[in-house]
Amino acid sequence: MAQILSGKEVASAINAGVKAEAAGLRERGIVPKLAIIRVGEREDDISYERGAIKRCGSVGVEVKSIVLPSDTSQDELISVIHDVNNDSGIHGVLLFRPLPKHIDDNAVRRALLPEKDVDGITDGSMAGIYAGEDIGFPPCTPQACMEILDHYGIDVKGKRAVVIGRSLVVGKPAAMMLLKRHATVTICHTRTVDLPSVAREAEILIVSAGKAGIIGADYLNENQIVIDVGINVNEDGKLCGDVDFKSAEPVVKAITPVPGGVGTVTTSVLAKHVVKAAARSIEDI
Amino acid sequence: MAQILSGKEVASAINAGVKAEAAGLRERGIVPKLAIIRVGEREDDISYERGAIKRCGSVGVEVKSIVLPSDTSQDELISVIHDVNNDSGIHGVLLFRPLPKHIDDNAVRRALLPEKDVDGITDGSMAGIYAGEDIGFPPCTPQACMEILDHYGIDVKGKRAVVIGRSLVVGKPAAMMLLKRHATVTICHTRTVDLPSVAREAEILIVSAGKAGIIGADYLNENQIVIDVGINVNEDGKLCGDVDFKSAEPVVKAITPVPGGVGTVTTSVLAKHVVKAAARSIEDI
Repeated sequence: MAQILSGKEVASAINAGVKAEAAGLRERGIVPKLAIIRVGEREDDISYERGAIKRCGSVGVEVKSIVLPSDTSQDELISVIHDVNNDSGIHGVLLFRPLPKHIDDNAVRRALLPEKDVDGITDGSMAGIYAGEDIGFPPCTPQACMEILDHYGIDVKGKRAVVIGRSLVVGKPAAMMLLKRHATVTICHTRTVDLPSVAREAEILIVSAGKAGIIGADYLNENQIVIDVGINVNEDGKLCGDVDFKSAEPVVKAITPVPGGVGTVTTSVLAKHVVKAAARSIEDI
Repeated sequence: MAQILSGKEVASAINAGVKAEAAGLRERGIVPKLAIIRVGEREDDISYERGAIKRCGSVGVEVKSIVLPSDTSQDELISVIHDVNNDSGIHGVLLFRPLPKHIDDNAVRRALLPEKDVDGITDGSMAGIYAGEDIGFPPCTPQACMEILDHYGIDVKGKRAVVIGRSLVVGKPAAMMLLKRHATVTICHTRTVDLPSVAREAEILIVSAGKAGIIGADYLNENQIVIDVGINVNEDGKLCGDVDFKSAEPVVKAITPVPGGVGTVTTSVLAKHVVKAAARSIEDI
């Protein structure tokens, strides 16, 4: 029977800290504020936006939602980004991606100020993650993975960590963050030969494969901490992770559930980043 | 008996290509030109500078050496960088580091234009390496490792690659470049537990440990390609790598010697980057 790493518990702890810090900032006349920019009406985006607004509201972070039609031009979108860059009342910006195909993602990413980039999409934030320096912010999802490890006192130093997935949103930043914490890190992907064997080497296994339940018992062992980043809908219409929880839970040492794991923590990390950006904005003056 | 991966052979092949491309640019009125900025009189820097000037000269790349006293102020150095940024006749810049301690490395790195950053030190180049995109340039040394693998037709796709070292100059960029070529990559460092066992998992082993001859037979096996990035001086005053060549050569499948390996290729990569920067500069017009 594995220890269940509860995202809800981690989120509660983060929220308490963020709420206190936001209150402190408000006393100093600063109201931490997030701008959410959404182009179009993708269901996933709307659902995440709803969660982010609720979470931010509960911890004292204001949100300004900017919704643009899906045929918004690149120039119009960049102009909106310039507006939030120049608005000293806005401390963090969440931009939903992927953007519609007629918009150049790189041009838009680069328009955003790194200091307001609370989800790690700018070159500045990426250089910071890669170099292990405190420039911009890491993306919220891999940061949520680290928050879970930290909350449960799981020290990764010297441990074998395996990350499945090499995206810029999860896999690569998670690998860099584990490396900074002195884990020995292996990055796997679709071209990895004999993935089960490589995964079994892990003491810390972070799974961001993007496929429902593909990580079964043959990838796992009794010494592993498993962080499942996947959010999928299974055949029965229920939310599930990339790890086959039923097979994994009896085997491994600790595991995050889906739902109730990493996904539960990301909006708390987002709020935390906004408050940090707001605090930095007065340090800079 | 291992195959010897000759840096000299790889460098010759690169030089021939660079020379032809530089000649083509000259015919179009563009003389590819590198600025080398050196603060102080460190012997390693002077020796590398001499090699770079010779190599660039042999392939048709001009060099402007800018030597500043070791007590140069940060503002003076940044002003020199602004000058080379603004000089359309200079296509690439090599800045020797580490800089003297009174100068903030980050402030200086950030002053350089990424498009002239032929040794991958700016945030833009780092974001490019990390994201696997063609922004700026990778550092010359890990690129030299890739050139050696490519020259000898060593396909890393799906292979287990282990990188020993996590610096921004070698380890991290090498890991990202191997990942882009679809290797399964493990990054090791001083905190890695049982490094010999982890190293033995490698089919491609890139060693940048910074210690003379520490990688012996217990780290190696008969299926390995070993790229030794180390350049050290041993007890007899002779150049040697991080790999104990005498122990390794009878064991592994292929290995780079020191001297005559990676170090022999870096100035050719530097010249290649300058010519590429010069070619890009006319594409952009």
